[in-house]
Amino acid sequence: MSQPYVPTARTRVVREANRADYDRETAYRILDEGFLCHVGFVADAQPFVIPTSYGRSGDKLYIHGSAASRMLRQLKESVPVCVTVTLLDGLVLARSIFNHSMNYRSVVMLGNAALVEDPAEKLEALRLLSEHIIPGRWADSRQPNEQELKATSVLRLPIEEFSAKVRTGPVIDDEEDYVFRTWAGVVPLEMKAGKPIADARLDPSLPVPDYAKHYSRTD
Amino acid sequence: MSQPYVPTARTRVVREANRADYDRETAYRILDEGFLCHVGFVADAQPFVIPTSYGRSGDKLYIHGSAASRMLRQLKESVPVCVTVTLLDGLVLARSIFNHSMNYRSVVMLGNAALVEDPAEKLEALRLLSEHIIPGRWADSRQPNEQELKATSVLRLPIEEFSAKVRTGPVIDDEEDYVFRTWAGVVPLEMKAGKPIADARLDPSLPVPDYAKHYSRTD
Repeated sequence: MSQPYVPTARTRVVREANRADYDRETAYRILDEGFLCHVGFVADAQPFVIPTSYGRSGDKLYIHGSAASRMLRQLKESVPVCVTVTLLDGLVLARSIFNHSMNYRSVVMLGNAALVEDPAEKLEALRLLSEHIIPGRWADSRQPNEQELKATSVLRLPIEEFSAKVRTGPVIDDEEDYVFRTWAGVVPLEMKAGKPIADARLDPSLPVPDYAKHYSRTD
Repeated sequence: MSQPYVPTARTRVVREANRADYDRETAYRILDEGFLCHVGFVADAQPFVIPTSYGRSGDKLYIHGSAASRMLRQLKESVPVCVTVTLLDGLVLARSIFNHSMNYRSVVMLGNAALVEDPAEKLEALRLLSEHIIPGRWADSRQPNEQELKATSVLRLPIEEFSAKVRTGPVIDDEEDYVFRTWAGVVPLEMKAGKPIADARLDPSLPVPDYAKHYSRTD
């Protein structure tokens, strides 16, 4: 069962409200399929939006350091952020320009992000992040040492105030446009993995692991 | 030739500065390959990040209305935004967790976005946007009428203050890690189009246009 969640004035979807979903499980499915988020924060009244990776543990989102963390570190304690994850599923080609659309699933999360200071929580967050992006890879890699752990920053955002937005399915044209003789339909889009490219300095006898050979976000 | 551009304190890339690129042509190539952006703006000290589509005309970015515009419309004149476009190209699996990375290309643009009020500019912006996403589709579709044009909002952002960030190529491990016996390399990622799905109410004699049958961002 999903936990009950009532959207706030800030997360209630106003445009195309029929596409809104405030169900925690819907949001988590989207978050679990993606791994790239866009983090928004404010510095000197200017918004900044920085792409980075994330992982999730229950109702906590862990966001990989990156440019955002440097700015955030200058500020005290936690700062308001917006973290958005968008999965693009297709182009919707309607008969009219106006009814063209995209199939997509997105989650917008608002809250206060804080730097993870505790080394044990940070290490666990990095493991979650790694396993989120490519399950199995963590155990196969040389683990972070103390110095590397210090050089990495991780942000923690409680997933409390959020909304998901989903557009799926076929074209919806105005009734009078169905006579218009143009092709209409959906062009599906999907992020696909190609054939892994082995590092030039790799011992060729080392096999390509399954997580790299059959990488997929949706299987 | 690129126009000269000197990054401001706000757009100078501080983290992994070797990946930074302030060349206008580099930024435009990234913008022209993508079509989904994340728009950041501030309302009541809270940042919001909303996904939407965009088109480009020279050094002007046109951003499709959407949730952002409703909030922006409540504000007077132009408002500070950050528009970020990210193309994901691959997962970089290093021998150490610390040197794991992603291949990507991103552009971060800062500036003041304004609603396009002039109907002729708005129509032209919508045409640019449509042609940017799927060239050829505009002419095949039923054009926007006056009412639809009024119901659509478009934002204009001058591309003045920006930076691109690009990570490409192979794994870069610490010298002492090359003895670590784990597979290392790059898993390429690409947004791919699937087989077009014709609308259920479509006359089956209408052929699938090439722009839908062979949709690609990189050809």
